[in-house]
Amino acid sequence: MSTTRIALILHYDGSAFNGWQVQPAGVPTVQTVLEHALAKIALHPVATIVAGRTDTGVHATAQVVHFDTTATRPLSAWVRGINAHLPSSVAVQAAYEVSPEFSARFDAYRRSYRYVLCNEAVRPVILAGKVGWAFRDLSVAAMQQAAVCLVGEHDFSSFRASECQAKSPIKTMYSVNIHSHDSMVCFDFQANAFLHHMVRNLVGALVYVGYGKLSVADFAALLAAKDRTLAPPTFMPDGLYLTGVDYPEHFGVPRATIPAWLWGQTT
Amino acid sequence: MSTTRIALILHYDGSAFNGWQVQPAGVPTVQTVLEHALAKIALHPVATIVAGRTDTGVHATAQVVHFDTTATRPLSAWVRGINAHLPSSVAVQAAYEVSPEFSARFDAYRRSYRYVLCNEAVRPVILAGKVGWAFRDLSVAAMQQAAVCLVGEHDFSSFRASECQAKSPIKTMYSVNIHSHDSMVCFDFQANAFLHHMVRNLVGALVYVGYGKLSVADFAALLAAKDRTLAPPTFMPDGLYLTGVDYPEHFGVPRATIPAWLWGQTT
Repeated sequence: MSTTRIALILHYDGSAFNGWQVQPAGVPTVQTVLEHALAKIALHPVATIVAGRTDTGVHATAQVVHFDTTATRPLSAWVRGINAHLPSSVAVQAAYEVSPEFSARFDAYRRSYRYVLCNEAVRPVILAGKVGWAFRDLSVAAMQQAAVCLVGEHDFSSFRASECQAKSPIKTMYSVNIHSHDSMVCFDFQANAFLHHMVRNLVGALVYVGYGKLSVADFAALLAAKDRTLAPPTFMPDGLYLTGVDYPEHFGVPRATIPAWLWGQTT
Repeated sequence: MSTTRIALILHYDGSAFNGWQVQPAGVPTVQTVLEHALAKIALHPVATIVAGRTDTGVHATAQVVHFDTTATRPLSAWVRGINAHLPSSVAVQAAYEVSPEFSARFDAYRRSYRYVLCNEAVRPVILAGKVGWAFRDLSVAAMQQAAVCLVGEHDFSSFRASECQAKSPIKTMYSVNIHSHDSMVCFDFQANAFLHHMVRNLVGALVYVGYGKLSVADFAALLAAKDRTLAPPTFMPDGLYLTGVDYPEHFGVPRATIPAWLWGQTT
């Protein structure tokens, strides 16, 4: 029986789940509901491999998974058919038939995350759970200046959660772009890979810079210190989105574009 | 004992509530949680009068209420103090001390509503409950043309829910403005007052125009027919926001501005 490998691009609202990864029965995870829906269409159990195992409360507009199936279905069945079996908090945006060599996890050479921060005096209510919150005035210019030192290959130990399982704390940051749109501040990070809680820890420290509690030089010193205990606390997960995963072009899995409704630039 | 009248501007996420108005015990309403929080700060029972009694699922970025209190509190207590006692789905944005003549309900001479519609092939998940959804391509130009006939004084019976308790179906529409921002389409309505379900019924009919199921002339004929049974179905509440209430200037209660994060123009 011949096997087909399918890649899916997913959107999900992370506040509805205890993260990506399957957990003991009864704990809602994105992987659990997705594999359940896939089995309904494939008519056999389906195991998925994911690009980025997001934490509890973290959203995605560009998550990529792959799976193998012996079922023969039109690609639309892996979008509309699956979506009919998913809860309101998850949806497949696109499906691609890919080579049996493709791995959503191991072939990803770049990941993009956006953190959306609401900088208003009163906590967000319409967007509660969808954006972070900083209630004092932030200096975007100071945060932009501080972030420059992050670009390049660095040991990011100062921004690494103690439970991080990555082999090495050394990652390559391709770009950091901080831009504000009225009261929303977006932090866009692109790197080859991210350590556990790395974006939330970076945002926590950048907000200290924005508040004037850390100088630009303090922030650079914090990176250089490679010591998590010196850094400000981890920021809330609410505003964090996985917004892009890049693969070599020959696999035919394009990077999802950032939706215009995600309060910032789309590139 | 002297009495002070306070006006509040509120944001709330309507998907967390069974509408505005107090209902039997155990049914969550915005009025119930607000009056509960007000009593905690005032230290006496508080009754509120509201500008617009929104339905289940309808949001607000500009709801106005007033109440009387014998307590003497700084205005910040009616913002930060109340917010500490409100659930994550409601927050007071601003408080004003107003004349004992002011009525949040009877002095409002104009109300503004925005309907936000997501025009994408796949249902919204990050913004589920916050935006409506139309999955086929909408012609914004056709909807704009059709909406022109709504401006002015009209009998809006074709867009009135059967359970509507308004004395008259005749209302004055000051403006209708339809604008798209990438895949989000915003419908902004300003009128002296609105009938029950009027905006959702208007959006339902305009979406038929956008799909080409009704012509611009059909839409004008529908308004002229004054017959609800001829009109397309009521649109879902998810994308509906009360975005402005206007009072005579001497009361000192300014109209809230539309937040830039609400996917459209701010005026």
